[in-house]
Amino acid sequence: MDTGQLTAFLAREFPQVRDDFAIEDLTADTIRVRMRIVERHLRPGGTVSGPSMFALADVSVYLMILSRIGPEALAVTTTSSMDFMRKPAAGVDLLCDCRLLKLGRVLAVGDALIRSEGVEAPVARATLTYSIPPKRAAG
Amino acid sequence: MDTGQLTAFLAREFPQVRDDFAIEDLTADTIRVRMRIVERHLRPGGTVSGPSMFALADVSVYLMILSRIGPEALAVTTTSSMDFMRKPAAGVDLLCDCRLLKLGRVLAVGDALIRSEGVEAPVARATLTYSIPPKRAAG
Amino acid sequence: MDTGQLTAFLAREFPQVRDDFAIEDLTADTIRVRMRIVERHLRPGGTVSGPSMFALADVSVYLMILSRIGPEALAVTTTSSMDFMRKPAAGVDLLCDCRLLKLGRVLAVGDALIRSEGVEAPVARATLTYSIPPKRAAG
Amino acid sequence: MDTGQLTAFLAREFPQVRDDFAIEDLTADTIRVRMRIVERHLRPGGTVSGPSMFALADVSVYLMILSRIGPEALAVTTTSSMDFMRKPAAGVDLLCDCRLLKLGRVLAVGDALIRSEGVEAPVARATLTYSIPPKRAAG
Repeated sequence: MDTGQLTAFLAREFPQVRDDFAIEDLTADTIRVRMRIVERHLRPGGTVSGPSMFALADVSVYLMILSRIGPEALAVTTTSSMDFMRKPAAGVDLLCDCRLLKLGRVLAVGDALIRSEGVEAPVARATLTYSIPPKRAAG
Repeated sequence: MDTGQLTAFLAREFPQVRDDFAIEDLTADTIRVRMRIVERHLRPGGTVSGPSMFALADVSVYLMILSRIGPEALAVTTTSSMDFMRKPAAGVDLLCDCRLLKLGRVLAVGDALIRSEGVEAPVARATLTYSIPPKRAAG
Repeated sequence: MDTGQLTAFLAREFPQVRDDFAIEDLTADTIRVRMRIVERHLRPGGTVSGPSMFALADVSVYLMILSRIGPEALAVTTTSSMDFMRKPAAGVDLLCDCRLLKLGRVLAVGDALIRSEGVEAPVARATLTYSIPPKRAAG
Repeated sequence: MDTGQLTAFLAREFPQVRDDFAIEDLTADTIRVRMRIVERHLRPGGTVSGPSMFALADVSVYLMILSRIGPEALAVTTTSSMDFMRKPAAGVDLLCDCRLLKLGRVLAVGDALIRSEGVEAPVARATLTYSIPPKRAAG
């Protein structure tokens, strides 16, 4: 799936979050996803909430995997680890850069580095493992 | 802080999520938190989204720590690991049981087990580490 | 597999570490494993090394899974998270208590709490995911 | 500390493992460490054991942090996550490439990618958090 197909898939399957995310770049084993920060993502002190950053890492790795295996909406996160390292810069979007580390028959692994736009030092990192469902019989 | 104080703190500091969570039980080193599942938490197939479950584990461990150290709204999550093991049961709330594993001078660690109400087999587990800010000078 | 069968399996398949570990208790979904601490496990200051504690958690969850699925020496660790919370007590063994959280068709998940013998406060915790190989054709 | 100082520190403080590791490259925020694979590191099927790979990631991030803060032998691992993605190639060493993601006042975070020498696809990845002890009073 290319950027257009992934964007359409996201809009169709995840209507609640479709406006939060935009694919900025996609290669065979990397993706960059922008999170448009709005009031709903914020916590006291103006920081982006942990669950919002988790959502960004999760959807980014998911889209990267889908770009390789096709629209398997049933692929599910099985494991995640995430480190929160710095407070995001105020008033700017977050950018999430992912690498596909493994794409196996049953498991796929990707990691993610999240930065505030225009700032080099990373805000957070994550690694996510997805379970890939067996291929449905052709119908 | 007791259950009433924690609930008031949550309502004041996290107005966006105050209606999602309710403290069901609190001891010196455990807490049970209910997540009231609504449409906004769901994903295709009726499952609760990963970020929603992350939010449940995160807030639960946070409240458990606050119950011991007082209303330090600036305590921040530094590290998390989470495993998603089963699809939640449809149409019921999630219950999150946490244990405080460490409460040190600068770091606190808690783990969490999430179940669908009325179902024994766990849906997810998480461990979260919080960084505790140095005490502000008395004023 | 019962305790005797697991012990024999460990001795046969992992001769390098067979003397480090002893199964103290085994139920349908829990196991307690003792690690006999010797010089080789120690680090400066008399603490047990992180890799030694990782080995204890890893073998404990592995044996618990084998007790349920039989001697699948090819089951492999896919993901782990581990938190080191306190310095172990000097001069005593470590005890590792595991729970089986999931035993699926392709993935099994267990968590582990490590304590110094005779001390309640936990030294470390871990969660490990194992990939279970497809059954070999009967021969 | 430069490569020579780190190597001398490792030999002095960790005599049990000094021959396992060699620093191949060191910059301000990266390190490459070689693990010389010997019989003691292996498991059935010729694979390198999980605890051996954990040790490689742990010592690599530790040395990278020491290169910046000096010989703080008391810096301790507080949290780790690790994913095992492929079986290492037989008969070759492992190389571990680390990045320093955060070097704060009390916490440092680094991640690690482990490959078999001469093979591009990664064998494992890890992220480790270290707690940095307060500076001792000058003496």
